[in-house]
Amino acid sequence: MDKNIPYKTYLEESEMPKQWYNVRADMKNKPAPLLNPATLKPMTAEELGVVFCDELVQQELNTTDAYIDIPEEIREFYKMYRPSPLVRAYCLEKALGTPAKIYYKFEGNNTSGSHKLNSAIAQAYYAKKQGLKGVTTETGAGQWGTALSMACAYFGLDCKVYMVKVSYEQKPFRREVMRTYGASVTPSPSDTTNVGRKILAEHPGTTGSLGCAISEAVEVAVGSEGYRYVLGSVLNQVLLHQSVIGLESLAAFEKLGEKPDIIIGCAGGGSNLGGLISPFMGQKLRGEADYRFIAVEPASCPSLTRGKYAYDYCDTGMVCPLAKMYTLGSGFIPSANHAGGLRYHGMSSTLSQLYDDKLMEAVSVEQTKVFEAAQQFARIEGILPAPESSHAIRVAIDEALKCKETGEEKTILFGLTGTGYFDMVAYQKFNDGEMSDYIPTDEDLAKGFAGLPKVD
Amino acid sequence: MDKNIPYKTYLEESEMPKQWYNVRADMKNKPAPLLNPATLKPMTAEELGVVFCDELVQQELNTTDAYIDIPEEIREFYKMYRPSPLVRAYCLEKALGTPAKIYYKFEGNNTSGSHKLNSAIAQAYYAKKQGLKGVTTETGAGQWGTALSMACAYFGLDCKVYMVKVSYEQKPFRREVMRTYGASVTPSPSDTTNVGRKILAEHPGTTGSLGCAISEAVEVAVGSEGYRYVLGSVLNQVLLHQSVIGLESLAAFEKLGEKPDIIIGCAGGGSNLGGLISPFMGQKLRGEADYRFIAVEPASCPSLTRGKYAYDYCDTGMVCPLAKMYTLGSGFIPSANHAGGLRYHGMSSTLSQLYDDKLMEAVSVEQTKVFEAAQQFARIEGILPAPESSHAIRVAIDEALKCKETGEEKTILFGLTGTGYFDMVAYQKFNDGEMSDYIPTDEDLAKGFAGLPKVD
Repeated sequence: MDKNIPYKTYLEESEMPKQWYNVRADMKNKPAPLLNPATLKPMTAEELGVVFCDELVQQELNTTDAYIDIPEEIREFYKMYRPSPLVRAYCLEKALGTPAKIYYKFEGNNTSGSHKLNSAIAQAYYAKKQGLKGVTTETGAGQWGTALSMACAYFGLDCKVYMVKVSYEQKPFRREVMRTYGASVTPSPSDTTNVGRKILAEHPGTTGSLGCAISEAVEVAVGSEGYRYVLGSVLNQVLLHQSVIGLESLAAFEKLGEKPDIIIGCAGGGSNLGGLISPFMGQKLRGEADYRFIAVEPASCPSLTRGKYAYDYCDTGMVCPLAKMYTLGSGFIPSANHAGGLRYHGMSSTLSQLYDDKLMEAVSVEQTKVFEAAQQFARIEGILPAPESSHAIRVAIDEALKCKETGEEKTILFGLTGTGYFDMVAYQKFNDGEMSDYIPTDEDLAKGFAGLPKVD
Repeated sequence: MDKNIPYKTYLEESEMPKQWYNVRADMKNKPAPLLNPATLKPMTAEELGVVFCDELVQQELNTTDAYIDIPEEIREFYKMYRPSPLVRAYCLEKALGTPAKIYYKFEGNNTSGSHKLNSAIAQAYYAKKQGLKGVTTETGAGQWGTALSMACAYFGLDCKVYMVKVSYEQKPFRREVMRTYGASVTPSPSDTTNVGRKILAEHPGTTGSLGCAISEAVEVAVGSEGYRYVLGSVLNQVLLHQSVIGLESLAAFEKLGEKPDIIIGCAGGGSNLGGLISPFMGQKLRGEADYRFIAVEPASCPSLTRGKYAYDYCDTGMVCPLAKMYTLGSGFIPSANHAGGLRYHGMSSTLSQLYDDKLMEAVSVEQTKVFEAAQQFARIEGILPAPESSHAIRVAIDEALKCKETGEEKTILFGLTGTGYFDMVAYQKFNDGEMSDYIPTDEDLAKGFAGLPKVD
């Protein structure tokens, strides 16, 4: 091992970020604004305030302030599970025989099991500050719902979670964690909302989708006194909160006197990737440093690598604003064999713009290769990774093996967003040799694109 | 919060222990030796070497060396998930309104989910060093089996786990984690061993016990070329390895300029409790400091508080040596409503002797009260605790509330041995109001005592 680089680097609590970083402030081409689906005009703060907490609306629309203070109460909560470690993967390097230095920022050491808690606690805080009774949300794989239920328990807020039905049934333990934290969990589509009843009538027996669960959660928030809707990814406000990942990583690298060459993150809606790369991207945008950024998405849900950059609905029920993003169309649902999260049809507007401006690369990977990397990583580095995070592991290993061929001593940083303790059904499939891959055909994608709204 | 005490205190990697501490060296009354069940004479190293790895036998029998070097390879592995944090439970203190200072040593931030990995990696290392092919073991709640499968994957050893049948069936995901790490997992009793077949014939439909799984694992180890048996608790060698918990805790307290008054740990076979208290007990034994030590056990399996201090079989099949310990009799099996681990009929010889010498206290708690504490802790401190660990939480909260009454500013340290992510069936029962308590009657206990061997 390198003499001055420990396995794990933790910042002191006094070194933890006191402000989030808003990458939009440094972007020349700003991400496109959300549009009102009725008027096709940019959503105003007032319109957004019906759905979202006031302070979060301000953060959503703020494209100019590079730094936004993290309230004291949130920083105190962060101290319960942060700073997260920046880990040098010595054992993995040795096993691969690569000259590359591999680092990962590990966000899984908290009960929600992922980075999602970073934004959940912020959103719950602003809801509490606004005097709300509670919040509604959707969850797919369950990480976001778990994180939000923890945050709501901490601030004494009611928490209503709409959980994609297939996950609700396959992951009873995720549900039980949320219940332990006092949240109510409803399988979606449900008969508790208009949009849920409509979808059930049109598609009896459907196992649900993230887009559908979003529609239900929004409907309940808008129709209930003292409630707002909160979302765990895609939105600018979420990327803002998640910047704490990148800020801590940057500070840790500076402490070590190191600098990454390649930064890799898995990408579903973009919350982890956006949070991890933001401060580094800021340096690149300001011409202070250069990095390669790689977004990794599943081949079964390839919004960046095969999607269109267009305005689209954020949800299946089309009750949400339109967002300009790389998208597969709001009607796109990944094949049933797809395990874990990273199943959203679109991608954060901010990341979409950065990708369109060629400031970031994207690759897609097939899930059997992802689980091979997951198993290899688990056995070598001792952490059982979430399927989502394992997308980043796959590409980090691939890049490290390229270095082995070329002899280059590159420094690789990837985001290890979470643990796979609630994903053992997927691991079991892999262990039993029953996991399969799926790559949508161009015809499959064309169906999704056909549902894109016409916006000039 | 106290100005100079952070939420989490991590030692530097350079400050991590380089030696384990062997509390037996400082004990005036040594724990009684293991006896050969045939001759009733103390087991020799040669006899023990049939079952255990040679180096571990030396550690088992060593009652004189206070410090034993931790091999470099084990210290490197420790760096992947250690040092574990010493956490100041500021939020819990505030919620309880207590003047007490509450600390916990959190051992759950690794994929095995508990402290068990500390000894698993040591035992796997010595097996590898001896040139063995593999090891066998038993697991109840699954934490030990998971830890051992991780350790064996790291050193490339075969790992055969006999898992108590009721756990095997109720915890398929634990099993799957072990399989992901390459272990083979067999439900016990099984038809792969003589003792298993005998028990199945006598008790068809039995859901197994830890004592029975031990017998099977030992039989396979002894009968297979290049295999030895390893155990995750009870033994002196295990307490030795687990002393890393207490050593790190002591070093962290010294760094903070603090000192605990009360040290609390859950007790099943004693691995965590023994490891946590050892270095503090050493100070007490040497007259350098004084502490109150409290062992917490389930009311449904009360070996210390209601057991007899006597020689007993360590396993149901009576193939293991006899140990002098507080015991309920090797035939005792906790009621089916008992959740989680802490179900072993006996207790570490070392802890039994310390308890008999009145150097340590013991209390028993009922499981609904334990889960109330678990839920409260999860919501306030953000970590979903293992049912086992929650026994210690219960008593830590009770002691903190006593301080509230008396106004005393005591400093409490408890061991948070692990997380409850694989215990959601038990949490679900609690959430649904279906959890019950069970306290064995004196008649129930008398049945277990009747099976104690006659040893003078």
